[in-house]
Amino acid sequence: MKAVTFHGPHDLRYEEVPDPTLPDERSAIVRVTLAAICGSDLHTYHGDMPPSRAGMPIGHEAIGEVLEVGARVTRVKPGDRVMISGCVGCGTCPRCYEGDFVLCERFQFRVPGLHGLGGAQAELIAVPCADYALGLIPDGISDDQALMLTDACPTGYMGAKRAEIRPGDAVAVIGQGPIGRSALEAAFLFGPSTVFALDRVPERLAGAEAMGAVPVNVDEVDPVSFIRQRLGGLGPQRVIEAVGPDATVALALRLCRAGGTVSMIGASVSREFPLNLGFFQWKHLTFRASLTSVPLYWETLIPLVREGRLRPERMITHRFPLSEGPEAFRLFDERREGVMKVVLEP
Amino acid sequence: MKAVTFHGPHDLRYEEVPDPTLPDERSAIVRVTLAAICGSDLHTYHGDMPPSRAGMPIGHEAIGEVLEVGARVTRVKPGDRVMISGCVGCGTCPRCYEGDFVLCERFQFRVPGLHGLGGAQAELIAVPCADYALGLIPDGISDDQALMLTDACPTGYMGAKRAEIRPGDAVAVIGQGPIGRSALEAAFLFGPSTVFALDRVPERLAGAEAMGAVPVNVDEVDPVSFIRQRLGGLGPQRVIEAVGPDATVALALRLCRAGGTVSMIGASVSREFPLNLGFFQWKHLTFRASLTSVPLYWETLIPLVREGRLRPERMITHRFPLSEGPEAFRLFDERREGVMKVVLEP
Amino acid sequence: MKAVTFHGPHDLRYEEVPDPTLPDERSAIVRVTLAAICGSDLHTYHGDMPPSRAGMPIGHEAIGEVLEVGARVTRVKPGDRVMISGCVGCGTCPRCYEGDFVLCERFQFRVPGLHGLGGAQAELIAVPCADYALGLIPDGISDDQALMLTDACPTGYMGAKRAEIRPGDAVAVIGQGPIGRSALEAAFLFGPSTVFALDRVPERLAGAEAMGAVPVNVDEVDPVSFIRQRLGGLGPQRVIEAVGPDATVALALRLCRAGGTVSMIGASVSREFPLNLGFFQWKHLTFRASLTSVPLYWETLIPLVREGRLRPERMITHRFPLSEGPEAFRLFDERREGVMKVVLEP
Amino acid sequence: MKAVTFHGPHDLRYEEVPDPTLPDERSAIVRVTLAAICGSDLHTYHGDMPPSRAGMPIGHEAIGEVLEVGARVTRVKPGDRVMISGCVGCGTCPRCYEGDFVLCERFQFRVPGLHGLGGAQAELIAVPCADYALGLIPDGISDDQALMLTDACPTGYMGAKRAEIRPGDAVAVIGQGPIGRSALEAAFLFGPSTVFALDRVPERLAGAEAMGAVPVNVDEVDPVSFIRQRLGGLGPQRVIEAVGPDATVALALRLCRAGGTVSMIGASVSREFPLNLGFFQWKHLTFRASLTSVPLYWETLIPLVREGRLRPERMITHRFPLSEGPEAFRLFDERREGVMKVVLEP
Repeated sequence: MKAVTFHGPHDLRYEEVPDPTLPDERSAIVRVTLAAICGSDLHTYHGDMPPSRAGMPIGHEAIGEVLEVGARVTRVKPGDRVMISGCVGCGTCPRCYEGDFVLCERFQFRVPGLHGLGGAQAELIAVPCADYALGLIPDGISDDQALMLTDACPTGYMGAKRAEIRPGDAVAVIGQGPIGRSALEAAFLFGPSTVFALDRVPERLAGAEAMGAVPVNVDEVDPVSFIRQRLGGLGPQRVIEAVGPDATVALALRLCRAGGTVSMIGASVSREFPLNLGFFQWKHLTFRASLTSVPLYWETLIPLVREGRLRPERMITHRFPLSEGPEAFRLFDERREGVMKVVLEP
Repeated sequence: MKAVTFHGPHDLRYEEVPDPTLPDERSAIVRVTLAAICGSDLHTYHGDMPPSRAGMPIGHEAIGEVLEVGARVTRVKPGDRVMISGCVGCGTCPRCYEGDFVLCERFQFRVPGLHGLGGAQAELIAVPCADYALGLIPDGISDDQALMLTDACPTGYMGAKRAEIRPGDAVAVIGQGPIGRSALEAAFLFGPSTVFALDRVPERLAGAEAMGAVPVNVDEVDPVSFIRQRLGGLGPQRVIEAVGPDATVALALRLCRAGGTVSMIGASVSREFPLNLGFFQWKHLTFRASLTSVPLYWETLIPLVREGRLRPERMITHRFPLSEGPEAFRLFDERREGVMKVVLEP
Repeated sequence: MKAVTFHGPHDLRYEEVPDPTLPDERSAIVRVTLAAICGSDLHTYHGDMPPSRAGMPIGHEAIGEVLEVGARVTRVKPGDRVMISGCVGCGTCPRCYEGDFVLCERFQFRVPGLHGLGGAQAELIAVPCADYALGLIPDGISDDQALMLTDACPTGYMGAKRAEIRPGDAVAVIGQGPIGRSALEAAFLFGPSTVFALDRVPERLAGAEAMGAVPVNVDEVDPVSFIRQRLGGLGPQRVIEAVGPDATVALALRLCRAGGTVSMIGASVSREFPLNLGFFQWKHLTFRASLTSVPLYWETLIPLVREGRLRPERMITHRFPLSEGPEAFRLFDERREGVMKVVLEP
Repeated sequence: MKAVTFHGPHDLRYEEVPDPTLPDERSAIVRVTLAAICGSDLHTYHGDMPPSRAGMPIGHEAIGEVLEVGARVTRVKPGDRVMISGCVGCGTCPRCYEGDFVLCERFQFRVPGLHGLGGAQAELIAVPCADYALGLIPDGISDDQALMLTDACPTGYMGAKRAEIRPGDAVAVIGQGPIGRSALEAAFLFGPSTVFALDRVPERLAGAEAMGAVPVNVDEVDPVSFIRQRLGGLGPQRVIEAVGPDATVALALRLCRAGGTVSMIGASVSREFPLNLGFFQWKHLTFRASLTSVPLYWETLIPLVREGRLRPERMITHRFPLSEGPEAFRLFDERREGVMKVVLEP
């Protein structure tokens, strides 16, 4: 089959690779019909988070059609249109039985395209623990919507949910890339009075404002002073960090009101974040950083997407044939042309 | 002073009555600047729920200016613009210290205009336990908004909150009068995928549809079949009953999905509602009926109203001088002219 | 095989019946090693709730060893020691995938020994949707403990959980049979300050007192006055009803403090419980009646039983060979010899 | 009056100081009848956290009798027996109206004996915002119990509550000083299956074991390996840190199971705790550090203490006259004689 493969930093190739085969009786082979590039794929692209070996197909956001299932797969069958979870687990522990792969008790949380698994930016993909990692695409959900449900939309929702937003709360979402945008959209599900959207890209801020947020350009104002002034001297009760670097995490903790919650979904590889613990305690804060057990959120999100309460498909700005995957990465990496979400079509 | 007083069923009068005086050191006298007619005032108007004696001013929704406070009132002072809670308690028990008058441990839950208290459709009103029953009107809240915060908007919110709506849930709101409309608007704060609005008045259904609900005219379709068909054969997980009679309560319990919650805010005087308990148990339901501890919800609702997330002031359809209060009741009782919420101006 | 079968009210027989066979690929055949008699089996015994046809094996509480599994059973295998859930569902809907059989979206909530399924007081039983209805008995759990985990212990826990007990609350448990006893023991997991145990059987009250409850003999005192006096004039915030008749449900609603929760686990077949709805609303109550999705609670309860925090096996008072099942029912029905829980050994 | 005052590290004196006077209309003067030494007083004793000026009375745990109240104090009066909250706030913001001083919106969270307020190890103390900082001692609560309710017991409970313990969870409490002991006792209110108590002092571990905990002597075993082995390879879902230094906080985060919660109540003055953020995110953890809004917990804790579900008074190991306060500090600082909690009697 053809796939987008990794050969080194900034060296992706569209090339022929062997077809995947069923690794065990609990797996399935899916023919990919649409894939997307995730912000975290850039870590791979830059070589900071390479796949386990060169030449592997990359990517972890895709939908497709089931081609073949192992003998012990009972919930999906060949021909089914499915979402592929952007992560998998062992599939045989209590947490995996719930689809809560992040908490897999055998510590087998893995991401396709990394961790020894073939990626999703390919014509075919082998999916382990298929009963829990594949979700039927129901009527009323378009392909684009389903694709957004394989990672970006659940991650944003999970981040907003773990922020413990109560009706009337003020919320700040730091970062307006695809994950931040998803969190912003999800935050409105919890009845906030005000949602501040922080970024430095004017068109991303404009997009956030169009969704009802108060845009805060961190290059133009001091976000802490600006937001406190808007809130009568206090910070927002809930802050969602959707970027990842230490600096924005520190901003999140500083910005948050005493007694509030900081929910972090930006990916971090930091080993020594310098936490001001005395201050953290004085402020009575709650801090959470998370990865996403994608299937856990499908039941909640599908009706919201179907009824148009969430419209994650609006994030898609570009489409390329899979064969142009390497070029698509360059565009995405350089943030050209107002790019938000790029779709690849095998 | 002048007030709208009760003299018998359908016999309201605008007349001179003695000015109220401070009943004790924890009370305040408020000069009413705006009052509103509540759906439950019709029970009084019809004579089903008369005030404790004839000639009493009626009504329990009002805002005003503090004229005088007792020696032990510490949170408000003369000159303050205030919302008057549509109910009061003893003001000295733990529940009243939280503003949770419905649960007053001295069983002194009382409504102005009933229960021996002078009503709010008057030029002046004496308010017991003023520290907990009066709320400062903050900047950014208009008089109309503040007026809606004295009963209708908190009651709708409380009903939606007690319905335990989770993101993605389907919700039905039975009845689209002022309380049902408030509950409908509040339900959207909890991230439902679909909200069904049930009524038989076309213009009320149109109003609900304009707010994003699916209108269900109970005179035209069987609501249970209609809604189940829309939801793939299942009922909505959450039902809010905002009318009160046994028939609509029974509909709510029948409509609700197994494992769901029915939250009732329509006022009931039923003594023997025939509950099908075996069926109720088989369906694993939760049933709540409630009155509203108004002040409990101000902190949540004020920022939502100020930021335009809730716009309860849109319910106001008519305005009369207080002197025309009796005529205003007739119009409201007869549901003429698309009436929803009527305001009286002293 | 041999089984205890139903032939009419008070007419149970121990007799030879055909061995069960695998009804479909998602089922399993289990060799029963221990069974128990549930209070609700008396409804069958009295003929009020007969099996779907005469001659069927009855009972729904048992543990055993898996003999055979269908091709699509992936979580258990022949030779496994298992608990058999006291109820089953379709096994193919989202709720059944969670083991939440009561809410089965195909409305296939069924109890072995009723609803067309062979019962558990037999040498063999066919268990539908075996992946979700069978639970592995882990090390450290005795057979008696596992047996109590198939219905009584989860039902009591579910009833206590749905009562929403918060630390410091006062709780009343109405009825001290096996289900009430289980609820009493579970109530202590939620940190109550006081738990009142209501019954009329002195030895059951003594048992409750030994567990730390305040015994209330309803034949000797008026429970409402007695409890309110102990609580400074207020009722308990949480009431668990574990009997079923209208009279005890009415007592539960009357006893409960305003703003509190009544959780009903006693089985009801009442069609017209006369609910005082006005009073219910005035008290701002929450009312829940429930059946138990047994597997939902295993993960929580197993460590509690293993560590001795819950000791449901202490409820077992009598043991008979399966062949004496009919005699065991007589003893249980007549409440002779301080009987609480009766075990049958095939 | 006489008081224990601070003159420098290890230099406490029992001496005559001026009587306090009412600072404003919302304050009260309380005659202290019992005071206690808190672990955090050792920070003062060592000079790490000195009072705002030398010669000030120290201490923040005490009960007494109200002598005098300001004109705007409405909830207590002279003669009342009261608990004095170990912290205060402004008394006029929404959070202080709830007794939630830690979140005071005017940032006036203050501790008696520090922050410019006279301390409680004195014959008299002036208490600001008396309506919210003083709690009536109800019948059935002994002086020793009331004293423990002014800080230690609420802090332990708050720490356990914020750990989000669910029935069946495994819990670890790091540190078995007075605060850790209080958290340990409170943890049992939430229905855990196993509670591990970590310390290095054998008698404190013995005390924890007597309360039902599994003792873990960190000088004898590696706590992470030991606990994981007991839990089948996984960590406890909930960890309470009750010491404070960076090393035990790091242990808490390492010990906690993926998806779990670390609740920190040990006092920290760390400015740069090196948080392994990538690991924290990979484990999907929740981390909370907190100070205690004491009055917030009285309603919950009083019935638990009165009914003997919590027995914090058992922590008291030593009693001295107030005049021997300096000697009492030496004994407590040196952990002589199995000291846990020291009471001073004016």
